[in-house]
Amino acid sequence: MNLQKNNRRDFLKKAALASASMAAMPAISMGAQNNTVQKGKSIYIEKDTSLHSKLIVPKNNGLRITGTFLDEISHDIPHQNWGEAEWDLDFQYMKAIGIDTVIMIRSGYKKFITYPSQYLLGKGCFMPSVDLLDMYLRLAEKHGMKFYFGLYDSGHYWATGDMTHEIEDNKYVIDEVWKNYGEKYKSFGGWYVSGEISRATKGAIGAFYAMGKQCKDVSGGLPTFISPWIDGKKAVAASGTTLSKEAAVSVQQHEKEWDEIFAGIHEVVDAVAFQDGHIDYDELDAFFTVNKKLADKYGMKCWTNAESFDRDMPIKFLPIKFDKLRMKLEAAQRCGYDKAITFEFSHFMSPQSAYAQAGNLYNRYKEYFNL
Amino acid sequence: MNLQKNNRRDFLKKAALASASMAAMPAISMGAQNNTVQKGKSIYIEKDTSLHSKLIVPKNNGLRITGTFLDEISHDIPHQNWGEAEWDLDFQYMKAIGIDTVIMIRSGYKKFITYPSQYLLGKGCFMPSVDLLDMYLRLAEKHGMKFYFGLYDSGHYWATGDMTHEIEDNKYVIDEVWKNYGEKYKSFGGWYVSGEISRATKGAIGAFYAMGKQCKDVSGGLPTFISPWIDGKKAVAASGTTLSKEAAVSVQQHEKEWDEIFAGIHEVVDAVAFQDGHIDYDELDAFFTVNKKLADKYGMKCWTNAESFDRDMPIKFLPIKFDKLRMKLEAAQRCGYDKAITFEFSHFMSPQSAYAQAGNLYNRYKEYFNL
Amino acid sequence: MNLQKNNRRDFLKKAALASASMAAMPAISMGAQNNTVQKGKSIYIEKDTSLHSKLIVPKNNGLRITGTFLDEISHDIPHQNWGEAEWDLDFQYMKAIGIDTVIMIRSGYKKFITYPSQYLLGKGCFMPSVDLLDMYLRLAEKHGMKFYFGLYDSGHYWATGDMTHEIEDNKYVIDEVWKNYGEKYKSFGGWYVSGEISRATKGAIGAFYAMGKQCKDVSGGLPTFISPWIDGKKAVAASGTTLSKEAAVSVQQHEKEWDEIFAGIHEVVDAVAFQDGHIDYDELDAFFTVNKKLADKYGMKCWTNAESFDRDMPIKFLPIKFDKLRMKLEAAQRCGYDKAITFEFSHFMSPQSAYAQAGNLYNRYKEYFNL
Repeated sequence: MNLQKNNRRDFLKKAALASASMAAMPAISMGAQNNTVQKGKSIYIEKDTSLHSKLIVPKNNGLRITGTFLDEISHDIPHQNWGEAEWDLDFQYMKAIGIDTVIMIRSGYKKFITYPSQYLLGKGCFMPSVDLLDMYLRLAEKHGMKFYFGLYDSGHYWATGDMTHEIEDNKYVIDEVWKNYGEKYKSFGGWYVSGEISRATKGAIGAFYAMGKQCKDVSGGLPTFISPWIDGKKAVAASGTTLSKEAAVSVQQHEKEWDEIFAGIHEVVDAVAFQDGHIDYDELDAFFTVNKKLADKYGMKCWTNAESFDRDMPIKFLPIKFDKLRMKLEAAQRCGYDKAITFEFSHFMSPQSAYAQAGNLYNRYKEYFNL
Repeated sequence: MNLQKNNRRDFLKKAALASASMAAMPAISMGAQNNTVQKGKSIYIEKDTSLHSKLIVPKNNGLRITGTFLDEISHDIPHQNWGEAEWDLDFQYMKAIGIDTVIMIRSGYKKFITYPSQYLLGKGCFMPSVDLLDMYLRLAEKHGMKFYFGLYDSGHYWATGDMTHEIEDNKYVIDEVWKNYGEKYKSFGGWYVSGEISRATKGAIGAFYAMGKQCKDVSGGLPTFISPWIDGKKAVAASGTTLSKEAAVSVQQHEKEWDEIFAGIHEVVDAVAFQDGHIDYDELDAFFTVNKKLADKYGMKCWTNAESFDRDMPIKFLPIKFDKLRMKLEAAQRCGYDKAITFEFSHFMSPQSAYAQAGNLYNRYKEYFNL
Repeated sequence: MNLQKNNRRDFLKKAALASASMAAMPAISMGAQNNTVQKGKSIYIEKDTSLHSKLIVPKNNGLRITGTFLDEISHDIPHQNWGEAEWDLDFQYMKAIGIDTVIMIRSGYKKFITYPSQYLLGKGCFMPSVDLLDMYLRLAEKHGMKFYFGLYDSGHYWATGDMTHEIEDNKYVIDEVWKNYGEKYKSFGGWYVSGEISRATKGAIGAFYAMGKQCKDVSGGLPTFISPWIDGKKAVAASGTTLSKEAAVSVQQHEKEWDEIFAGIHEVVDAVAFQDGHIDYDELDAFFTVNKKLADKYGMKCWTNAESFDRDMPIKFLPIKFDKLRMKLEAAQRCGYDKAITFEFSHFMSPQSAYAQAGNLYNRYKEYFNL
């Protein structure tokens, strides 16, 4: 045992703790310690890290988050401009709270792509400066996590409701990715069929079946999942100013329509992770019960996509209030869900997120789950 | 005197100062110190904390902020996910600039509540994970501050213009809170009748009278206040995209309508703190003069609710530009106002706010007021 | 050589590095180092700063940014509330990546002004607490940079399309500023004619000629430039919710209209820096080629205003994704542009920006340009 090293670490740790507890204060404000509000009276400001929140609800009573999307393509969430060092650190933060699964939300969106796809570059997509797919697979391997690959999203479907382009493009993408990455990395653990559908997208059954089947066929049956949204009262456009709508789907209608969809896709889709943010907090149990019942009926795993951003605020989007996340995870636990994943850790739960509320959410989450 | 402790503190302070002045630089950027832009030329980057802004206006010429709302319910401001350690630290930051009053903006909004109210839980509200009311009262006591309790807001009034629900719910809430908290904590110093009204809400006179009276009756006459908004050109919805409107109220109309409202409520409302953000900066004196005149006429205290967020920006809402806050506090001083409170310190002025602009505002504020 | 000082610096640097790599972790999360996710298993989280992103595109292949706007007036970007120490540090950060030119985007906007202008104060503008113009000129001098002065913007033009007020006000502003600042500071290096025009503003030719001529006449011919926008698909209002529009200008129409405008102003405007953010990434070369051709035809310098904020996100505005900035700078390089400036460094690229994404962008930028 190297005493010198330990002592140095111990020293650095103390210095770091000292500065961490003061890190939130801008430099000038450090002077606050000696400042005089009333003449002659000195004030010393210090964070008392021995203080813990006094929880009045049972702790550790929800389903733990064990997976997260990786949102590198930045459809509607601003980019954090992380390099490999930041991503490596983030995987450590994830692992520290029990996350074992990372899911790249899509491998490309319109002309921006995550890896140098010969096929997509040939169609006019832009060359990325980093092969994110390779990096994520390497980091997943390094940190002992499973990686799910999200299919390419041409953007055509969102504009037209027509999924023909998605099927056509992904034919090439799936083959290419499996050959160049899937066979190389043992962290390549599955597929995320990335088109976000709701009840209004019944034409998607055929598309999801075709894409799911190809994923499984090429990879020797690796698991696949989808993450649709419930057409609830908060299913409104991110770019709009309204936060809710009147014409939300009923639980009964939701069950009827998804019964039909699951019937058509369950052979090639192993799990369904409904997004949990489009319904109200007192509707969670009703919808979750139906989702679990349907998943059971068709032999699919029932996951929850626990959104860690807040849909109720004018700024779209910042990290969610902890109690909202807690209520959603408790409902998932009550309804016997199999796994919780989140969209997503790196912006909304990570201690190094550009949104400092995320680091606080991380701490509240750990506090609640005794981590 | 413990020299060893002093030396250690001195050492840690130096280390902390060093890291604080570099804290804003991400790790890789630290290398900037040794980086070569032109080959062979080394650059050392350092914050010179001896530099101070050269103010060309008289300092300490506005009304100092001595109170702040606590916005824990998060109606339209994203949650910071603080635990008790962060709240305790924030109360220290507040006190360091002279804040002696904290006001919980509401005890609940729709189904989200701040304390485990038997009455509101019985009506379907959600159990909070922390009893914020208890925590705030404890921290106010610890730091020698007065706490004002904000009434429950069912959300019905905002949707319907009808305050019946507010009166009914708060009958129970006021009794319950006084019995369980008011009699226990000597920091419980008053009541904030939280419905935000403007001239268009004349039906509110009866409601405010009823609620104000009950607050005073149950608590042996503890002070009450309201914080209405002026129906000025910036009185637009937070969720909308417009920043101003044409049909703003005139000063004369404002005076006429508020004369009537004050006449109806002054016996049970001790102070009025108009929000200062809905009018333009060159309208401040005109409206403030009328507000003070009316308050004097009815024997009420005239406070200003100095908003510390910026209403003029597309992002709703981030911390205000210091000069705007300064102009509003100078106008309040000129017009002889009794007290300035703000909405609110923890997001928009605190050195530990997730919005780093807030910590800078704190420093500018201290600079101006010689704190 | 002072060994003691070196040792101390070395020590502080180590301490600072330690805390910097942990600075992103809130205090409680520091405990993560010792936390147990599964009982008995300890986790140590550390940023590995030796990890570098593996770039798969040629490095240093774009035009370097050597100028930035200073956006102190805050038209639609929230204020950071910096004091002189922060501005001084920012100029150091700028210089470290090769920025030699700073441009105050406007000297005033409506009633908010940057310096105590006798003329504008007389017209009802508000007294600023700091003379920013003087501060910027001093700092530019201290750090060996050139400062460009942006003219006053009354706001009338934006509302009415009529530039009469701009010409009238700036007659006084230009004289006043040259006499009080231009003759005093050798860092005063040129003029930015600040009205942001597009093809729809042809009436602006006369106004720009008049203002440009006065700037040059009064200052012995110091350089002038403009920074218009291309009326492309992303030319939409910051306050609106849409991100693009249908009726974008064609390249041909753009060339025709700007040929006419340049013909009218080239004698008194030395450089044109089109904003690069209103067109799509695969339209860059087409528009840039025309811009360069026109600038050459009229003997003007062709700059690019490389926007470092992201126009594609619901939050308006946060720092841009690095690859987007890279593609724009590469296009400027390909098309033989003379200089790249950005709007703007301090919010969107600075390591001390309130938007932490900016510091990461700074690091990505340095990585790409081998800085």
